Amino acid sequence: MFPKSIFNVIEGFKLLPGIGEKTAERLTFHVLNMSDEQIREFSSNLENMKIRVHRCPLCNNYTEEELCSICNNTSRDDNLLCIVEDPKSIYLFEKTGIFNGYYHVINGLISPLDGINPEDIGIEKLMNRIRSVKPSEVIIAVKPSIEGETTSLYIKKILEGMNIRITRLASGLPIGAEMEYIDPITLERAMVDRKIIE
Amino acid sequence: MFPKSIFNVIEGFKLLPGIGEKTAERLTFHVLNMSDEQIREFSSNLENMKIRVHRCPLCNNYTEEELCSICNNTSRDDNLLCIVEDPKSIYLFEKTGIFNGYYHVINGLISPLDGINPEDIGIEKLMNRIRSVKPSEVIIAVKPSIEGETTSLYIKKILEGMNIRITRLASGLPIGAEMEYIDPITLERAMVDRKIIE
Repeated sequence: MFPKSIFNVIEGFKLLPGIGEKTAERLTFHVLNMSDEQIREFSSNLENMKIRVHRCPLCNNYTEEELCSICNNTSRDDNLLCIVEDPKSIYLFEKTGIFNGYYHVINGLISPLDGINPEDIGIEKLMNRIRSVKPSEVIIAVKPSIEGETTSLYIKKILEGMNIRITRLASGLPIGAEMEYIDPITLERAMVDRKIIE
Repeated sequence: MFPKSIFNVIEGFKLLPGIGEKTAERLTFHVLNMSDEQIREFSSNLENMKIRVHRCPLCNNYTEEELCSICNNTSRDDNLLCIVEDPKSIYLFEKTGIFNGYYHVINGLISPLDGINPEDIGIEKLMNRIRSVKPSEVIIAVKPSIEGETTSLYIKKILEGMNIRITRLASGLPIGAEMEYIDPITLERAMVDRKIIE
């Protein structure tokens, strides 16, 4: 029903996460009203990103340089190594400004049910990094799910005996949340992990 | 904080309607994980669309051909002409399958407050079309807003004396809506336009 070239763009948008038929159509019609110049810039930026960006050989973060901007920054605290499940998490933590150590991106989480084993998420590379950097603390900052817990426990186990403090992010109530919307597992965890008010 | 080429794509997505910072980041990281091939196809589709698609000289619908697929279809009912405010509306009606006449796309709606006058929305071209096609009914299918009503009344006035039936879409309760969420103006209109149950 749509001209082919409009249909192609709609289908392209539908490949993106959270974009269904209706949104894809709305975006496409918006693009049709953009200037030639804007469209060319957008599409060349898409292609350039894929060409220029690669993974940092040390930590797997995205970068255009040899090393990423964090590994390149020698003024950070190399006693702290924070393990995250994807590069996006690095940007989330950096926005908070709370962490001044280095990161290491593993390739997702261990999930035996989905056939994802330790060797699939780059545990070997992580171990090499830890052996060479010798941090005093490793923070496992992955999402609080079955896969996250499995991955955390696995990493904790293989680091045993290396005299490294191994920590995880706190679980509990999200700030600003209404009690009635908190799921029972989070509530249970918040109760177990309760802290003395000081 | 993001490498420049990632930042550029995020900014590009933010130009699209309904896409804020967070969604733009999510889409961008998704694109980073797409194949080179997929990205090249998506970006060339974006550029091709703008190059290939133009407005139908008769009705202003989008098309890649000389005339759009609807104007090209001689088996439709040329007694019915449906006026819509943008080409997207044509696709919405065509999906319903309820209408078998022809369309004419005006260029938005009259809005004196925004400085949009009849000559800005292509009334001249519409009149020429109506004079040459001589439909027996003109359906004004624009959104039920102040601008929509203004535009409808204006078109009705200039078609006076041409012996054409001029209709508008029914207003009323959206199917499936909860009564408590209907705004008072729609409710009032639904009451005024009430129909005998047959």
